[in-house]
Amino acid sequence: MKSTSKGFFCAALVASVSQMFVAQTTVASDLYTIKDGKLERPTGYREWVFVGTPLTPNDMNNGKATFPEFHNVYLDRQSWNQWKEKGTVRDGAIMVKEMVSVGTKSAPSGSGYFEGDYIGLEISIKDSKHFPKEPGNWAYFSFTTDGKTLKETTSALPTEKCNACHAALAADDFMFTQYYPVLRAGKGTGIEATGGFNSKLTPAK
Amino acid sequence: MKSTSKGFFCAALVASVSQMFVAQTTVASDLYTIKDGKLERPTGYREWVFVGTPLTPNDMNNGKATFPEFHNVYLDRQSWNQWKEKGTVRDGAIMVKEMVSVGTKSAPSGSGYFEGDYIGLEISIKDSKHFPKEPGNWAYFSFTTDGKTLKETTSALPTEKCNACHAALAADDFMFTQYYPVLRAGKGTGIEATGGFNSKLTPAK
Repeated sequence: MKSTSKGFFCAALVASVSQMFVAQTTVASDLYTIKDGKLERPTGYREWVFVGTPLTPNDMNNGKATFPEFHNVYLDRQSWNQWKEKGTVRDGAIMVKEMVSVGTKSAPSGSGYFEGDYIGLEISIKDSKHFPKEPGNWAYFSFTTDGKTLKETTSALPTEKCNACHAALAADDFMFTQYYPVLRAGKGTGIEATGGFNSKLTPAK
Repeated sequence: MKSTSKGFFCAALVASVSQMFVAQTTVASDLYTIKDGKLERPTGYREWVFVGTPLTPNDMNNGKATFPEFHNVYLDRQSWNQWKEKGTVRDGAIMVKEMVSVGTKSAPSGSGYFEGDYIGLEISIKDSKHFPKEPGNWAYFSFTTDGKTLKETTSALPTEKCNACHAALAADDFMFTQYYPVLRAGKGTGIEATGGFNSKLTPAK
């Protein structure tokens, strides 16, 4: 009986551990869904790894910035793990550019630009299976509508609309790492990529 | 023999699972260390939850911003979990303000401000055990030196240096949430706090 009980416990534990790994695998590989050529709006990205915040305010772009205004940019955690270990972008990477308005230009800390409200959402995905013909296998999507709501699904933007500029001007595998200190400092630097392990602000490579 | 093998496997599995939980617990409760009144430089914060990027560029502050220039601000994940579920800040919360220079003011996406290199690191900690007399139990630290290196340890700054301003002007429990869209939108909103679950850009409370 004791043996049977142990066996049952062990089997239950194996099942439980298997479920844990299955759940983790599901989360890691289920970051985006493309159906009938349309990408469903990704979720959960504010818990991914932040890589940098470019700012193109309307008041510095004749009242109409191409990408208004703050761009909070994230990379999925699985891709981040490969980036910090190997310095390369995995097939299946997804980046999120969440757009935020300028809320104010004055604060107790001084004059500047301070983040206001969410106004849009743009996505890039590197996926050789879905986008074999796109340069670098990167495709680009916008879920932005009127600055108050987001689309539920959307198709990839034409190659010349986004990819061409990334191909020509982005510093590393179609990513504008020249504006993303987290990715620049973290490329292949292992645990130092996560911050604070090295007193030198630019980690040794 | 088969039974013994199973028993061994089961024992090894139990040990392995135990280690997993021990490791997770250690990570969650060991985010900072204070020894002899000095805080050791925290690590790993670039994998925490990003909450917003205030910008006080030198060129908008007579060449010498109080906090130059981009401030990438993070909250530890355990505190984030409580914030999104309950809308409150846990005792033991740690926030990181990583300072980044302005790298350039012109990019393919337009005119603006774009993040350059890391130049400093500031920390705030809410801890009733270590800081029972500080307003809100928040203490503030700077590891910044010359913009190229960071201190290994540092003492809390005087109350009037940081806490007083946070007490008077910060919107929510000494945090300047008025400039942190992730915290504003995420306060007590559960899974919606993580982004993308709601097509409305300002989640319903």
